[in-house]
Amino acid sequence: MKRIAVLTSGGDTPVMNAAIYSVVRTAASKGMTVFGIIRGYAGLIHGELTELLPQQVEYIVNKGGTIIKSARALEMLTEEGQKKAVKTLEDFGIEGLIVIGGDGSFKGARALTHLGVPAVGIPGTIDNDIAYTDYTLGFDTAVSTAAREIDRIRTSMLSHDRICVVEVMGRHCGDVALHVGVASEADYILVPEVKFDLDKVCEDILERKKNHREVSIIVLSEGAGDSEEIATAIKARTGLDIKSNILGYTQRGGEPTVFDRILAMRTGVRAVELLDEGQGGRVVGIRNNKIIDEDIDKALSRKKKFDTELYNDYLNMMNF
Amino acid sequence: MKRIAVLTSGGDTPVMNAAIYSVVRTAASKGMTVFGIIRGYAGLIHGELTELLPQQVEYIVNKGGTIIKSARALEMLTEEGQKKAVKTLEDFGIEGLIVIGGDGSFKGARALTHLGVPAVGIPGTIDNDIAYTDYTLGFDTAVSTAAREIDRIRTSMLSHDRICVVEVMGRHCGDVALHVGVASEADYILVPEVKFDLDKVCEDILERKKNHREVSIIVLSEGAGDSEEIATAIKARTGLDIKSNILGYTQRGGEPTVFDRILAMRTGVRAVELLDEGQGGRVVGIRNNKIIDEDIDKALSRKKKFDTELYNDYLNMMNF
Amino acid sequence: MKRIAVLTSGGDTPVMNAAIYSVVRTAASKGMTVFGIIRGYAGLIHGELTELLPQQVEYIVNKGGTIIKSARALEMLTEEGQKKAVKTLEDFGIEGLIVIGGDGSFKGARALTHLGVPAVGIPGTIDNDIAYTDYTLGFDTAVSTAAREIDRIRTSMLSHDRICVVEVMGRHCGDVALHVGVASEADYILVPEVKFDLDKVCEDILERKKNHREVSIIVLSEGAGDSEEIATAIKARTGLDIKSNILGYTQRGGEPTVFDRILAMRTGVRAVELLDEGQGGRVVGIRNNKIIDEDIDKALSRKKKFDTELYNDYLNMMNF
Amino acid sequence: MKRIAVLTSGGDTPVMNAAIYSVVRTAASKGMTVFGIIRGYAGLIHGELTELLPQQVEYIVNKGGTIIKSARALEMLTEEGQKKAVKTLEDFGIEGLIVIGGDGSFKGARALTHLGVPAVGIPGTIDNDIAYTDYTLGFDTAVSTAAREIDRIRTSMLSHDRICVVEVMGRHCGDVALHVGVASEADYILVPEVKFDLDKVCEDILERKKNHREVSIIVLSEGAGDSEEIATAIKARTGLDIKSNILGYTQRGGEPTVFDRILAMRTGVRAVELLDEGQGGRVVGIRNNKIIDEDIDKALSRKKKFDTELYNDYLNMMNF
Repeated sequence: MKRIAVLTSGGDTPVMNAAIYSVVRTAASKGMTVFGIIRGYAGLIHGELTELLPQQVEYIVNKGGTIIKSARALEMLTEEGQKKAVKTLEDFGIEGLIVIGGDGSFKGARALTHLGVPAVGIPGTIDNDIAYTDYTLGFDTAVSTAAREIDRIRTSMLSHDRICVVEVMGRHCGDVALHVGVASEADYILVPEVKFDLDKVCEDILERKKNHREVSIIVLSEGAGDSEEIATAIKARTGLDIKSNILGYTQRGGEPTVFDRILAMRTGVRAVELLDEGQGGRVVGIRNNKIIDEDIDKALSRKKKFDTELYNDYLNMMNF
Repeated sequence: MKRIAVLTSGGDTPVMNAAIYSVVRTAASKGMTVFGIIRGYAGLIHGELTELLPQQVEYIVNKGGTIIKSARALEMLTEEGQKKAVKTLEDFGIEGLIVIGGDGSFKGARALTHLGVPAVGIPGTIDNDIAYTDYTLGFDTAVSTAAREIDRIRTSMLSHDRICVVEVMGRHCGDVALHVGVASEADYILVPEVKFDLDKVCEDILERKKNHREVSIIVLSEGAGDSEEIATAIKARTGLDIKSNILGYTQRGGEPTVFDRILAMRTGVRAVELLDEGQGGRVVGIRNNKIIDEDIDKALSRKKKFDTELYNDYLNMMNF
Repeated sequence: MKRIAVLTSGGDTPVMNAAIYSVVRTAASKGMTVFGIIRGYAGLIHGELTELLPQQVEYIVNKGGTIIKSARALEMLTEEGQKKAVKTLEDFGIEGLIVIGGDGSFKGARALTHLGVPAVGIPGTIDNDIAYTDYTLGFDTAVSTAAREIDRIRTSMLSHDRICVVEVMGRHCGDVALHVGVASEADYILVPEVKFDLDKVCEDILERKKNHREVSIIVLSEGAGDSEEIATAIKARTGLDIKSNILGYTQRGGEPTVFDRILAMRTGVRAVELLDEGQGGRVVGIRNNKIIDEDIDKALSRKKKFDTELYNDYLNMMNF
Repeated sequence: MKRIAVLTSGGDTPVMNAAIYSVVRTAASKGMTVFGIIRGYAGLIHGELTELLPQQVEYIVNKGGTIIKSARALEMLTEEGQKKAVKTLEDFGIEGLIVIGGDGSFKGARALTHLGVPAVGIPGTIDNDIAYTDYTLGFDTAVSTAAREIDRIRTSMLSHDRICVVEVMGRHCGDVALHVGVASEADYILVPEVKFDLDKVCEDILERKKNHREVSIIVLSEGAGDSEEIATAIKARTGLDIKSNILGYTQRGGEPTVFDRILAMRTGVRAVELLDEGQGGRVVGIRNNKIIDEDIDKALSRKKKFDTELYNDYLNMMNF
């Protein structure tokens, strides 16, 4: 292939730029021309794109966000939208496409591949809710940001002997909450995948109080409840001083971690190599610490499993 | 004086430990014994205190929170509470007291001085709402934390061309919002001290949009409104994609800035020197970049003024 | 087992405390008593140890260093030293030992196991120079610190169009340099495992200059040369403005990353479980993203391989 | 004035971009056109400049370095160079100039004013070695970076009971060392302004050791000695385990602090206002916490004084 394009789609992550950097550099190293499509599939459908030269992506690896912007595009779910997308690619002589986004975005890549334009997906979402890869690009950074914010919140809670319910991102997937909780010495981790009994949490908190352990951090996954409601409920049952705190868009932004930067580099290289070999309809990722690629249909049919092993390790450590 | 005590009171700040460190070391250098009172005035009233040796405060300067804990104590507003407090100090042979807290906490220091125990106040609050000092201990750190969180939030807003209302602390005083806003390139700064017209903000946002400036960060002081309500109102009037984000307890916690660490050191030294000279009923602070001390009554009678000069500098820079 | 001990040995890492935390909590959850041995094998030989209760290790996960201190102990290489170590363990009724350190430290664990005290190793070193595990505890943090420092250094080099040789840790193993280089957009990565031709680097630098790419960051592994000498040599051959910068002990210290905190937690849990099952002479680690344990003799006989795949990915991206 | 220019000169600081941002926005708000001169006076002499629009300086406040690059220009010290500079300004119809740099750079501004082009200086240097202003732009950030690096270094020293000599920037001025030392609990602060007796330091270190205070951090100003030599000398006299560490270009780079960002904003506004009033030959700064401006001759004739008050406060706290 001589001309490829790249787009970022769906909720943004702080590692999209690092992936773009890798795609552009690797493609340039292979003599390919790369186009950046602006605002995801919307830009693809409406012909908003621009050539990306290696010097334009210099020094963006450590910058959050995405220089080609991201968006959600309902139009891409329609046959008409998809045809327009193919038309744009044909107009620009683009032979292959790399899509950085979540599994919603991957469906567009699959459709385009079926319509004759090889497309490859790179898993970009902070939620880590994609089954075929151990880690998505952005997850480590989001967890890192949230854990550091809890480090800060705890020093305040310790000053006043308070309890705090901290809500982190993750609508259907508790991975962010689980990793944040483990990394930040959370006393309780509440995720959508594991039923929890608030009465038991309250009993436990009161039991701890008897032993002069007054401060608790409860890490709550967005998908497992509302932090304010849960704080109110615990307060009602225990009579203790409970605060709640939603960690918001900071989790989506800022400087990426080294783990994420390297993952972005490696998946970017592999994605370009696949297109260079003429392979579309595939997604790249990391499994068992190795960069892998897989058929996109197979990947999308997998069911994300909760990391019971890590969760149990955590419980084994807390049972004293 | 040979025996003094220190307590932290009211909402905590990440610089209280640095002030404790300075007080304990300076006192030790003068041959004084220092007691740490646990949980503010509550601990003073109920006799909860412990000797603090220099080695116990080593390496706490960069740790948020307060090792002697903080609390609010209504009992200290009563004559009975105050007498109990004096009793505790007498029982332990303590001749002077240093109070790290806001102006509510200073009233306790004033009462104790009137009852014969010299007490000196160090201004510890993130809100910067104390009139006699240019800066309170914790303000620079809170502003710094919030500005860095907005740096993160912005990269996400830029990816999606969104507007975000970010709510920062400051119930009656807009200083946190003003400084955060200036430091983080906020497009609008809404504070309790300056009336704002939401219709005009909306018009301006729409005008900017015409010029392809789609992203706005609106920094909102807690005391000037509710971030969610304001976001909803702007959305209703403009039809644009607006998010809101409350920066919570992270502003109270974590590692202090260098500015705050040095301010804590210097005010701690001065507070101990005052007690050493037998002076109570005073507060220390920084004015015109010099460490000062002032009569507590005079200090408490001052009215905090909004920094119109900084605010106008900001406006002068935004008027293009 | 009812009574176990833990020690940290060799060069320190910022994740040793997180591993201690995990060991103490997991052991407490199983009803075991844990002793902390002070200053590594030296403390073991001379009977310097103390009981560690769960509350004593609270809130140390995010603190660099090791609360039980580390040291190098030549005495442990002698039979006499090893016997004294066994004697101490017997005196305190300690049935098993966990050693957090590099492969030098593991030899002590092996010796003790042979002498009848089951010992388990956790790989704690920033160099990532242990063959049986994909990652050692501290590596991700050291790489993260160094990459962030290079982010800072680069903004200065960009202001002046300069070249900088940045030396990172890694005496025999280029892993730190490789990962730092990839993560921080290094233009050249020099490691002990790959021969490099300084003349070719200089030619390339001059070629880049012709294309107005004036700034280069050269990441140099400690084991591949001396940064000042290399800077001088490049300057002599190119006539350009070259700086050198050694990143020092910051790489060993400070707050651990989330990746490292979680790795510490998981390996700590596994190490305690092994002792609980009466298994000694084993080391724990992570391989293919799974927590594993392995016979210590087998582990020590493995040869560390350079990550050629990552290195080649990097080269593939730079060849434009 | 309708057309002004801005340049950055001398050693870079991480706050130059924030000052450029302020200058460009303030000027645009006043209807002025702003040119950015590339590479300091060299660019001015050789006609390398470009218009800077407000949108081009968006989101650079938190980015280290300088988008218009900096350089040292010996040519500007000659009459010929100065005349060429004036010629360039005339050719572009530029009526006034803002120079961001140290006092060496200010001499160019003075010369240009004398030659008929009003020029105003903004103090940009991390060393804080300019007498007329309490703080220079970049100082707080450099101190903050160095203090945080020492926080990291200390956790490693504590693990091994070691002493470390940490060298910070400041060739003739000990301000960086003094502030870093105070902020990071340094045990000794060595600056060029205060003679120190290494024998006494060694005695003190040995005395401390007797009291089981084994770890010391010695903050050394570049201008007060060579860290490696001093470490070797202390080692020779005490026989203890001493390390040395030079903090390098990280102090010049990276993200600016909030204090510096606000100072940059305010001095930038004032500098443009002065030009707008037709005033040249002035420098802006901060004194007694107020933004001031002063005649450039008077400013350059002042002698920088060491902050004895802060230094004594530090000593008063260490004398136990």
